[in-house]
Amino acid sequence: MAEPEWESLEQCLEKHLPPADLREVKRLLYGKETRSGAQRLAAGVDLGTGECGEGGPGDQAERFGASRDHKEKLDLPSQALESAAEGDFELQGYAFEAAEEQLRGPRTVRVGLVQNRIPLPADAPVAKQVSALHRRIEAIVEVAAMCGVNIICFQEAWTMPFAFCTREKLPWTEFAESAEDGPTTRFCQKLAKKHNMVVVSPILERDGAHGDVLWNTAVVISNSGAVLGKTRKNHIPRVGDFNESTYYMEGNLGHPVFQTQFGRIAVNICYGRHHPLNWFMYSVNGADIIFNPSATIGALSESMWPIEARNAAIANHCFTCAINRVGKEYFPHEFTSGDGKKAHKDFGYFYGSSYVAAPDSSRTPGLSRTRDGLLVAELNLNLCRQVNDVWNFKMTGRYDMYARELAEAVQPDYRPHIVRE
Amino acid sequence: MAEPEWESLEQCLEKHLPPADLREVKRLLYGKETRSGAQRLAAGVDLGTGECGEGGPGDQAERFGASRDHKEKLDLPSQALESAAEGDFELQGYAFEAAEEQLRGPRTVRVGLVQNRIPLPADAPVAKQVSALHRRIEAIVEVAAMCGVNIICFQEAWTMPFAFCTREKLPWTEFAESAEDGPTTRFCQKLAKKHNMVVVSPILERDGAHGDVLWNTAVVISNSGAVLGKTRKNHIPRVGDFNESTYYMEGNLGHPVFQTQFGRIAVNICYGRHHPLNWFMYSVNGADIIFNPSATIGALSESMWPIEARNAAIANHCFTCAINRVGKEYFPHEFTSGDGKKAHKDFGYFYGSSYVAAPDSSRTPGLSRTRDGLLVAELNLNLCRQVNDVWNFKMTGRYDMYARELAEAVQPDYRPHIVRE
Repeated sequence: MAEPEWESLEQCLEKHLPPADLREVKRLLYGKETRSGAQRLAAGVDLGTGECGEGGPGDQAERFGASRDHKEKLDLPSQALESAAEGDFELQGYAFEAAEEQLRGPRTVRVGLVQNRIPLPADAPVAKQVSALHRRIEAIVEVAAMCGVNIICFQEAWTMPFAFCTREKLPWTEFAESAEDGPTTRFCQKLAKKHNMVVVSPILERDGAHGDVLWNTAVVISNSGAVLGKTRKNHIPRVGDFNESTYYMEGNLGHPVFQTQFGRIAVNICYGRHHPLNWFMYSVNGADIIFNPSATIGALSESMWPIEARNAAIANHCFTCAINRVGKEYFPHEFTSGDGKKAHKDFGYFYGSSYVAAPDSSRTPGLSRTRDGLLVAELNLNLCRQVNDVWNFKMTGRYDMYARELAEAVQPDYRPHIVRE
Repeated sequence: MAEPEWESLEQCLEKHLPPADLREVKRLLYGKETRSGAQRLAAGVDLGTGECGEGGPGDQAERFGASRDHKEKLDLPSQALESAAEGDFELQGYAFEAAEEQLRGPRTVRVGLVQNRIPLPADAPVAKQVSALHRRIEAIVEVAAMCGVNIICFQEAWTMPFAFCTREKLPWTEFAESAEDGPTTRFCQKLAKKHNMVVVSPILERDGAHGDVLWNTAVVISNSGAVLGKTRKNHIPRVGDFNESTYYMEGNLGHPVFQTQFGRIAVNICYGRHHPLNWFMYSVNGADIIFNPSATIGALSESMWPIEARNAAIANHCFTCAINRVGKEYFPHEFTSGDGKKAHKDFGYFYGSSYVAAPDSSRTPGLSRTRDGLLVAELNLNLCRQVNDVWNFKMTGRYDMYARELAEAVQPDYRPHIVRE
């Protein structure tokens, strides 16, 4: 069974594998090892050559395939590193580069992914918990600002414990706020304006304009401080302790993409990552970066975690940012989990491991499985179209054919195409 | 750059990681380490308990998540192991189990995946190459029969060198055969009948009934020896050396699923694995097992390889079987690769690494990157519906919504849903 204390896959590999093997393992798992910032500057960021010797000349796609060293460690300011150490959270930074173009300069943007445990117990007063989380996130965002982050995203339902396991309504529903002007949105607007940063704030939403109904929502706040809009969780789990259909319905806002100063972003909340069509529609609507703020536990999904957001980045020629919360949460009243086992007051631990995946199939290492953390990733958005032109998944996608097939498949009288002897 | 001689990720991890770390790494990467066949028999294949101690009781999905030990090493007959050693190909076997049900007995089926280099040089006479490949495959299929394989699948365009890099027509187009009654299909029919085995034979097809046009096709032969049908490559690459659009068009047979005695199967050929909608439609039509016979090189796709078929198994609640050929192929005339580099006579090496992925997110280790091999996987097809009921991706899929959105998105005047400040 999963050991929550086991720090991370990356640390284990770095510790035990000889350097040459480590390089190969990282190439296979992450699309190439990272170089240090100093090496990168010294090399003049040359993407035209590099380690291409063995195996023949490869092809244009090689520039974007596993052998290209696109992903490099960022040089983060020492003040940021010190603050993170003092604040007891991990700080990592990586850069994804693209080939030089003649007509477009690099479109670099820095995203920040925040993963954290809840700082107070789940049964502390609601207002105190929200306040403590605001303080914690505020401190991490300060460090993100030192690191030049342009767009920051917090974890799913970040202002509350992930209490949907309980199926209790009070007090957990009291964490719900207005998306447009609740206290958390106003808090985020201040941060956004102060740091000139786009803020993605996933919360439990109370929809005052529509029957006071609850939604699982992400509020997107512009770096100007204005609320840009909101987007809702499109797919809702009924798996084990994730009794979210007890609280809210499938999102009704479709697949909005938000045009920010730093690029087009979308938010695919949690369980929506299991649905390729969901990622796909955000990409169809133009997202260069799709955030996936999540809350998931080890026993349930840990071997899926490296796969799904990564596949979405590959399949859709875009960047994806997978965020998972950290820690174990204990609830005041016991609950069961639909598995025949005895009632209990927690349902496992959230294993963090947040990461960013790029369209060229490379990805960052994950943040820790156990610690609060901030992952900073510098993305050159030009990579999206470059990979698009090389791999052509959209060009060869035959979407008109699938539109027809899917329309047929959803009919009540659909007969699956089965060939029999 | 990739070293073709580096044997495999699995071997490297097994060699260097301490046992406790290896267990965790395998859990994260493969959905749990395998137990030996002897341990499995001794344990009475108990899926109700197992290593669930730490971390709380988990939930129903735990039975199908990373902590469940579904994947076990098969006890293969010593005669098979000896024959494989003599035949100089790797032989591996694993089993995926499911929970016991009251009304359905286990629906176990053994699939075989064959990866191989071409035994003769690419410029040897066509008839000799085909004959040599038939002999090689025949020997491997004999061993598959010893291992109780029910459904066997060969690699993409298995009777020829992967010559589409050259863009030359003759002599490569002479490898094309009739799907219904060409020499290779007749050869496969004999094998199928002899071994009571379903045979999936991906070939270059010559369509005599439709203008003698070429297709990239997989012929499916029933264990009765009858040709069940054929299925064509739905997505065609134009990436670097994969100049396949020079030879054939996108397949026009939709997404057929073949009902065999051992279960429902489909074939997603090569580049089609990059398209989630493609996997999806085979699953919609009822496939329990989707084969992905491929031919791809290291520089291009190796870091994608563990991701795509694995994601498809997770997303669609089915088994997927990813096969890649092995070795380096040298062509008589030099060709360029669309990357600005000098002309050359090979374009890299095919890295094998064939594997099977299960709906519970677990997977087998890969076959070698360098050697011919046969991977035998025993699947309990009951796992598909069990995972379906636990994870509910199809139930929560909202396909009617996506059918509408996709139909809109393919319109010439579609306006992406972009929210601006």
